[in-house]
This record gives sequence, structure tokens and C-alpha cells, in this order.
Amino acid sequence: MSVLNPSLPVREQMEALIRAKQLEICKGLETLDTKKFKADEWTRGNNGGGGKSMVLQDGETFEKAGVNISVVHGPLPHAAIEKMKNDHKDIKVDQNGEVTFFACGLSMVIHPINPHAPTMHLNYRYFEILNNDGSVQTWWFGGGADLTPSYLYIDDAKHFHKLHKDALDPFGLELYPEFKIWCDNYFKITHRNETRGVGGIFYDDFNKIDAQKCLEMSESCLNAMLPSYLPLIAKRKDMPFTEKEKEWQQIRRGRYVEFNLVYDRGTKFGLQTPNSRIESILMSMPKTATWLYNHEPEEGSREAELLKVTRNPINWV
Amino acid sequence: MSVLNPSLPVREQMEALIRAKQLEICKGLETLDTKKFKADEWTRGNNGGGGKSMVLQDGETFEKAGVNISVVHGPLPHAAIEKMKNDHKDIKVDQNGEVTFFACGLSMVIHPINPHAPTMHLNYRYFEILNNDGSVQTWWFGGGADLTPSYLYIDDAKHFHKLHKDALDPFGLELYPEFKIWCDNYFKITHRNETRGVGGIFYDDFNKIDAQKCLEMSESCLNAMLPSYLPLIAKRKDMPFTEKEKEWQQIRRGRYVEFNLVYDRGTKFGLQTPNSRIESILMSMPKTATWLYNHEPEEGSREAELLKVTRNPINWV
Repeated sequence: MSVLNPSLPVREQMEALIRAKQLEICKGLETLDTKKFKADEWTRGNNGGGGKSMVLQDGETFEKAGVNISVVHGPLPHAAIEKMKNDHKDIKVDQNGEVTFFACGLSMVIHPINPHAPTMHLNYRYFEILNNDGSVQTWWFGGGADLTPSYLYIDDAKHFHKLHKDALDPFGLELYPEFKIWCDNYFKITHRNETRGVGGIFYDDFNKIDAQKCLEMSESCLNAMLPSYLPLIAKRKDMPFTEKEKEWQQIRRGRYVEFNLVYDRGTKFGLQTPNSRIESILMSMPKTATWLYNHEPEEGSREAELLKVTRNPINWV
Repeated sequence: MSVLNPSLPVREQMEALIRAKQLEICKGLETLDTKKFKADEWTRGNNGGGGKSMVLQDGETFEKAGVNISVVHGPLPHAAIEKMKNDHKDIKVDQNGEVTFFACGLSMVIHPINPHAPTMHLNYRYFEILNNDGSVQTWWFGGGADLTPSYLYIDDAKHFHKLHKDALDPFGLELYPEFKIWCDNYFKITHRNETRGVGGIFYDDFNKIDAQKCLEMSESCLNAMLPSYLPLIAKRKDMPFTEKEKEWQQIRRGRYVEFNLVYDRGTKFGLQTPNSRIESILMSMPKTATWLYNHEPEEGSREAELLKVTRNPINWV
């Protein structure tokens, strides 16, 4: 059943959607852990909005799981306006070179304990640039979900991709193939020539279909989260593992940190935004990570198998 | 005794200096560990030079210690030229908009195991921009050393700063105060409003005194490394520590990672440079790091004492 109500403005529907999905996702994840999420509400200075972080740390299954929503607005920093103009040349600033924005979104990163259980990230967001009279000047949606295993399980990757393809197909059969490649390109650790994991979907600056359809698409993708991920965790969370496998997971988490801090646009935008909430932005970091000098897995090993896939992305469905 | 020979070109002297100091520093550090450094030579593609990494991992005292020299040259990437022009407006590119560089330097990061023993970083480097005929168009030196404790020991900070002041004073009494503030400003984790540690010295684009004097200054600072650091490690490496103290160290290492990946110019330059050696650039990373959601030390605790100093840098000498 949809939580969307087309009689309301888009931003209100999106806010209702992310609030509902945050609770639903947390509840779903809690079915696989004995520990519960803790809520933590926060506000941005100067009436700039706020958000709610739900965090589960040191669980039985999940080492660190964060599900965050934010609804923020206010003047956009000048540096951000300049960057944004690269993709939105039509943004009109006022006589002081300023512009006001509204943004809301849900973001989530789950790092399980077991090295055979994959990390999952998702983020669905809606962005508006406003005129001085408060009317919407331009808007777009962004989003995506991706899977980062330390060990490759082909069936897991296929399942994850299949469910995201199914979520997108009703909105255009061209979307999944486009968003799949976008994801491989976006989550690329360029200096390593590796993708972060086995990918998923990613899109940004999206306003090709009407806003109500975009909302429905966001909801459809958000609905894919639990069925695409929970079965993988259920299958992997109690698998036996060795110290060496745990160490490999820690090395892969180091790569996760490298991607987030060096490349991720959302993280970089957040760290540069005055009064942003650092703890919610860096909630995506794993609890622990390792860097070993010059570590290279043995040829033919399970570790090398994963690396191969990150260097040559595969079409899973 | 100086290893400099003023009858040789500056670049050859600098190369001889960093080669000699790399060995000396490694030998000095080995006196406090049962494990030895391992050498690892590497070359950059297309005759672009190379380097030698010395790494000690999983020692008794040092968790991860890296001492790296590099001597690299070749065409400068266009993005790097643009950035460099901010500080060196007089750089003349050739008709293709290209320019050749030569750079050599020694960089070092030492992460000890004991949370009471501080991390130390240093980097001394020399940079030349060349004309098409191979003559030097412009040159500068850069360098610095800084101390990153997890627990504040005032005497350690004073000792470290005092020896670096002593190393600089013969070259101008104004240098230490200037480089001390530069260091506090440079090693700043802006999004946390924290410095990385208790600072030290930092300078860049330095050519205010003649090149031979700059070489002597680099040597003098490099000579301060062992006496400024070894006594601190000798004092702290066998101190008893709790699990909580180890965790705090891991959280501080997370901050170290944040600084290196988000702000450090050398790391960013390296990651963007084609054919650069990633493992040598990221040798500076700690072996392990932790991110806990919303961790804030108790008021009045030893942990809070350190944070206070990182938020309000102190004049140690």
C-alpha cells in the first residue's frame, strides 16, 4: 500500500515517504538482531531544518547500522551553487547571488559483523531550488542502492540486482540498465581502479518523468530494500568465518572509507556545508577498518575473486 | 656531520639527504622494536622516477611505521598545473600548455601500538618546475613534522616543539612561530573544528632564503626527528593501558584518516596523479581505525582534555 497522497505537495509526500520507510526498514532489520535501533533527533542551526538518525551499534548481527532521514532548507553556500550549476545551468540566483534550497532524503548504511554478509547502502532524496517568493524554480530526484560484499556470492548479487530491476521496470525498461551502469561508474574508487562492491542502481538530477511518477519510483525502490537484503543477511549472518576472512572484510572496509571520504558527493557536500551534522554524514563509516601496506590477495583465492569483479563489473541480470 | 655537498646541484643534494635520513630514521626506530623495516623499491611508469618504501608492520612497539622516499619527474597533469598556479603565478607553460616537474621528498608516519605513545608524521620535500631545455624555472621547499597523541602529555608536546624550534632558529628566529601556526592551520579537520594533534611545524612553497640554506634547514629539521620522538616512545611504549584507552586511540585514528583523505594536499595530489604509487601514498593510514556514532568523551576526562587542546591550539614553547 502506498503512503503517497497525490493531493499534497511533492515535498510533503516525499517527507512522509521517508519517515514511513525509515521506521519500516529499522523494524525489518531488527528482526535479524537482538539489539534495537536508537533514535536521535537533531536540528540544523538557524531554522535550517533537521532530521532523525536511527542507529544500531554492536548488535549480534550488525556491527553498525544507520538509517537517517533529513529535511533541510535554507540558503545554499556559494561553493555549492557553483557546483550545482554544472548540472543545472538554468538555476537563477537573486541579486545577491543567492538561492534557497529544500532537500529531504533517507540514507542508510548497514555493516554486518560476519564477513560473508554484505554491506548495503541506499539513499533516496528530493531536491528543490526555490524562487524568492517560495515557489519551486527547479527540482530533481536522486537515489540508489548498492551492495558491497567482502566475499562474492553470485546468487546474492543476482538477487539484489533483480529486485531493483523489478522495482524500476514499471517506470521505464531503460531505467535499470542506465542506473546500473551509473552505479558502477559512481561507486568507483578511481585511484584503485575498483568499484566499491557489486553495484546496484544509482541516479541523480532526475526529472525526466513527472514528479508524482518520480515519487512512486522512489517508493518502489525503497520497497525493494528489505526483500533485496534481508534474505542475504539471514543466509550469511551465522556462517562460520576465519580470522583471515575477518581481516579481509576490514581491508574492504578501508576501501569503503576511501570511497566515502575521497569521492562520495553527498559526503563531500555535507562536510563542506556549514552547520551540517557531521555525525549523521559520517554514520556511513564502518565501525572498524584496516589498512595493510601492499596487501594483495593470492591468485585464485576467494579474495582475488571479489577483486576481479570490482575491476570488471558484471551484468548480473 | 652534514651529508650536503654544495658543489652538487640542489636536487642531487636533496636526494642524497633523503636517502641518508631514511636509513638513519629507520635504524633509530628499530632500536625500540624487535621487528625490522622491510624495503620495497618501486618505479613510476614511463621513466617517471620512483622511490623506496620502508615499512615495519605489526612490531612490538609500532603497529605501522612507514618511511618513504620518492624521486619523481615528468609532465605535470593539467589539473595540478592549475592548482599550482594559485601559489606560483609565474609558472610558464609551453605552447601545449604543459610543464615538466621534478620532485623529491621523504615522508614518514609512525603509528605506535600503545595509546599513550603518540603518532608522528614528517615530510620534507623539494620541488622544481623546469623549462623545456631542462633548466630550472622555479623551485621551492616544503616540509614539516607534527605529533598526534591520543592522550595529552604536556611535557611530550613541549619537548617535540622545543627541538623543532631549535632546528629552525639558526635559519631565522621568525620561522618557528610562523611554521607553528601554519601547522595548526594546515592539520585542521575543518568539519570537526579540531586540529589533528598537538601540531609541530609546517611550511610550503618556501624559497625565501637561498636554496643551499633551505637544504641546510631541511637537514636540520630531519636531524630533529629521532631526538624529538624516540624519547617519547621509550617513555610510553610499555605503559599499561585499558581497553577503553585503546578504543579512544582508534577513534583518534579515524580522525587521522579523515584528515588524510579529505584535506591533506599531498594525499589528494597523489591520488589524482596518474601512475602514482597508491600504496606509498596511503602508507600514512593507520593499520586500524574506528568510527563510533556520536562519541563524545566525558567532561573532565583525559579524553576530553586532548579534545580541548585540538580545539584551542596551545603555544608549547
